Amino acid sequence: MTTIQDFTTQYGLVGKIDAFGYLDWLKANPEAPRKHGKVVLVTADTPLKASRGEGKTTTTIALIDALNKRGIDAAAVLRQPSMGITAAGSKGGASGGGKASLTHPEIIDWGLTGEMAAIAAAQNLLVSFAEKAVDEGRIDTVLVPRVSEVPSRSLRSIAVDYGKGNVAEKVVLTPTSELMQIVCLSRSMDEIGRRVAAMIAGTKDGKPVTFGEFVDLWRITGILGDAVKPAVTETVNGSPVYVHGGPFANVSIGIPTLVSVEMACALHDVVIVEAGYGADAGAQKWLDIAAREFGAQWPAAAIVVTRASTWRDDPELAWRYPFHVQRLENFDIPTFPLVNLWEGEDDQVEALRATAKELEFRDPIIGNLFRDGGDALAPQLDGFVAALDSAQSAPQFHSRKGMNLLEKVRWIAQNAYGVPSERVLLKPGFTDSLAEAAALCKGVGVSLDDLAVVAVKSPATMTDNDRAPEGERTVTLKKVEVHAGAGLVHVNLTTSLTTPMPKIV
Amino acid sequence: MTTIQDFTTQYGLVGKIDAFGYLDWLKANPEAPRKHGKVVLVTADTPLKASRGEGKTTTTIALIDALNKRGIDAAAVLRQPSMGITAAGSKGGASGGGKASLTHPEIIDWGLTGEMAAIAAAQNLLVSFAEKAVDEGRIDTVLVPRVSEVPSRSLRSIAVDYGKGNVAEKVVLTPTSELMQIVCLSRSMDEIGRRVAAMIAGTKDGKPVTFGEFVDLWRITGILGDAVKPAVTETVNGSPVYVHGGPFANVSIGIPTLVSVEMACALHDVVIVEAGYGADAGAQKWLDIAAREFGAQWPAAAIVVTRASTWRDDPELAWRYPFHVQRLENFDIPTFPLVNLWEGEDDQVEALRATAKELEFRDPIIGNLFRDGGDALAPQLDGFVAALDSAQSAPQFHSRKGMNLLEKVRWIAQNAYGVPSERVLLKPGFTDSLAEAAALCKGVGVSLDDLAVVAVKSPATMTDNDRAPEGERTVTLKKVEVHAGAGLVHVNLTTSLTTPMPKIV
Repeated sequence: MTTIQDFTTQYGLVGKIDAFGYLDWLKANPEAPRKHGKVVLVTADTPLKASRGEGKTTTTIALIDALNKRGIDAAAVLRQPSMGITAAGSKGGASGGGKASLTHPEIIDWGLTGEMAAIAAAQNLLVSFAEKAVDEGRIDTVLVPRVSEVPSRSLRSIAVDYGKGNVAEKVVLTPTSELMQIVCLSRSMDEIGRRVAAMIAGTKDGKPVTFGEFVDLWRITGILGDAVKPAVTETVNGSPVYVHGGPFANVSIGIPTLVSVEMACALHDVVIVEAGYGADAGAQKWLDIAAREFGAQWPAAAIVVTRASTWRDDPELAWRYPFHVQRLENFDIPTFPLVNLWEGEDDQVEALRATAKELEFRDPIIGNLFRDGGDALAPQLDGFVAALDSAQSAPQFHSRKGMNLLEKVRWIAQNAYGVPSERVLLKPGFTDSLAEAAALCKGVGVSLDDLAVVAVKSPATMTDNDRAPEGERTVTLKKVEVHAGAGLVHVNLTTSLTTPMPKIV
Repeated sequence: MTTIQDFTTQYGLVGKIDAFGYLDWLKANPEAPRKHGKVVLVTADTPLKASRGEGKTTTTIALIDALNKRGIDAAAVLRQPSMGITAAGSKGGASGGGKASLTHPEIIDWGLTGEMAAIAAAQNLLVSFAEKAVDEGRIDTVLVPRVSEVPSRSLRSIAVDYGKGNVAEKVVLTPTSELMQIVCLSRSMDEIGRRVAAMIAGTKDGKPVTFGEFVDLWRITGILGDAVKPAVTETVNGSPVYVHGGPFANVSIGIPTLVSVEMACALHDVVIVEAGYGADAGAQKWLDIAAREFGAQWPAAAIVVTRASTWRDDPELAWRYPFHVQRLENFDIPTFPLVNLWEGEDDQVEALRATAKELEFRDPIIGNLFRDGGDALAPQLDGFVAALDSAQSAPQFHSRKGMNLLEKVRWIAQNAYGVPSERVLLKPGFTDSLAEAAALCKGVGVSLDDLAVVAVKSPATMTDNDRAPEGERTVTLKKVEVHAGAGLVHVNLTTSLTTPMPKIV
């Protein structure tokens, strides 16, 4: 009998799965045994600093260990961390820690099997082909950025052909590239090819030109041959973990690949999807982009991770955590607060429970997951499991395709950041940027309003100043960037960096 | 019993071997069964164009198939092709063709298991750390180039921090980076760490500063964890082929990793090492750098590949092929001419044999290797096999360490290009460049004359004008670049491009 093993190949210490092939096989064999797993989002409070995680991955790992311990077939889907950022020390790895660890975190943190590097090479090759198109007079302006796998402050702004052409270019981190978004959102290599063909390479006399007009797509898909295969590994307790797709929900979609989640749902009863940085970034993008516009599953439950210190020690920002929890509950998503204790915080449990009660949260799940792993969670999951059992499978959402872009952004500001439309401000130049984006779309026969909005923002803030009183918080829209191939439009707001190159520490 | 299998892990369709571990184990177990394979160089005539190969890889594959067919345990060691160059269409792949093919050429051509990408990330991360060192005032000038896996004309000269600092930088192709050279020349991860620490990051007030003074080396070696493991695959006829290390003997050393060759010699009786582009590039570097200075094996025999058309159809350049063959014979290396026929050239065999006789070559090996593979060679290898059997194992060479750099270069010009020292010219500025290089070396306690010279040149020419009459050919030295960590010094001559970014086709 055909099983997932027939689609899995060993790559050193991890397996790689032909998810495209497996999902096609399931479609062709509707009678084949399969599960219909429910998706649970593990998201977090808005971190105080991007470099300081709340413990989403640690929680995700402890959670599947705890669920499996309770006899529930649960798996996790993680995004591949950015090796460059990890190696540079700008951010810790994203593979858990202590008792809530993967068997081989070093593989996950240090480049996996070259997925992100292949995507980087393919995106940079597209830029090379765009340059060739300039030489050939097909275009006069290149609109695709180069990517770098490692952070480098000075790459935010570069000039190529320096001393002659002095062509200004920008370099972005690999996970934020349109090609990474295409890999995350596509369900076949054909779809990847179609989306790459629809990418806007640049303009000729102001009119957009797509890569489909001059690039041999096999050169790009050839590079991506292995990168489209999710990796499978496990926790130290043997719970299955799939890793696929880029991070950074602050400056990109930051979701795992759709196929990795769909594959996991066909193999397990509960599939934990990590969505961060905070709920305002990762969860917002899973709900409003992946689920609403790209057919991903609406979550059956959510867990919002925080650290006691994040939740309470900064009174001006303490509003954010309850805001996130309440917001997800408003979508009828049973949402469980989880406090990831650090060493020496065990004595705070009672106080934390009291605070949760005041806030009318569900009973919070509290534990030192680094120290105790899933054992700290298993006994606290009755309510969570009950909520999963009773979760409806019917979608709780509708698409916003066709809604005017500004309306979409205002809806996000109101709903995800708590800022009403009258306090959504347009920075000088935004309107021009919006008009240019609309013109680009028109030029390639796409409606700007049909693209899903990617809010590009700082991971640590939801508004221009989260410390301001609620009635004074604003969101300022800075500029618009079209990713026609991915079907997305970036809108930069708050203190976002369009080409994030974190400090090396 | 411990075997190579205990050091091999499957990575998709290829195996990856912990060569460091295997060679350490052999050292620790001198009684363990092992072979003492002889190295054979497969090199070529100087190609008319870099983009037009003579068929070295095809020959190498056909040759091991033919030897194995004759009952001789032969393996090949290939360099990993540059995926970026292949994907860009600037050059064909380097994995043979027709009946002389690998089982999975696409894996070899399209990034293998991310080796080159990891080296690129590590080299670029070093540049990021160098920038941080500038911020911290440790250095004021960065001397390490960024690397790109894909060719891009406009990256030859870039400015970073554009609009503010406008810091001029250069970008080179990954295979030409110092880090790739270090991976090719090192025999342990410790040695890689030591060599990276000895790399000159930049200067402070004109004085060189090495990476060892401010970089956590584990960040670099962590990235290289899998990249240091040779890949193993096979020909369509089942002959073993190891792939490891970067190409481009015109602008770098262009040799496979030393450990991949040493490992192959412990496992097989005959080890074919591909060394190109032409004998003036690849063979010169294997002999004068790998063997003389880094302890690689002196070849027991050589095969010099040409195409009938390369050999004869350009009378002005016809001197080059016999020159290469004779030069290797002068080192007492039994050297066999091999003519790789193309479709429709079968009728030329007699004429080619006659020409070879006039030139007093050994009997040439002639065949259409694409069409016939090893079958075309097997019956012609008696002389070659006899030469191998009688080859002495005693080294035929001595180191030139300590010889003045200019003397070394003159020796190379005379010996490898046929240009006497009086016609080795110094371009204006060369002497200054040489003095700067010497000062850099002195500043880090290294003698410039102890570094092995890497002649950086066009793959298609040996002299300033190969078409000039012998008595008028010159070699012009342009500049010097120190790679202190690798133990190399680059000397640019003829029409070399220091940052080769081939045309995308």
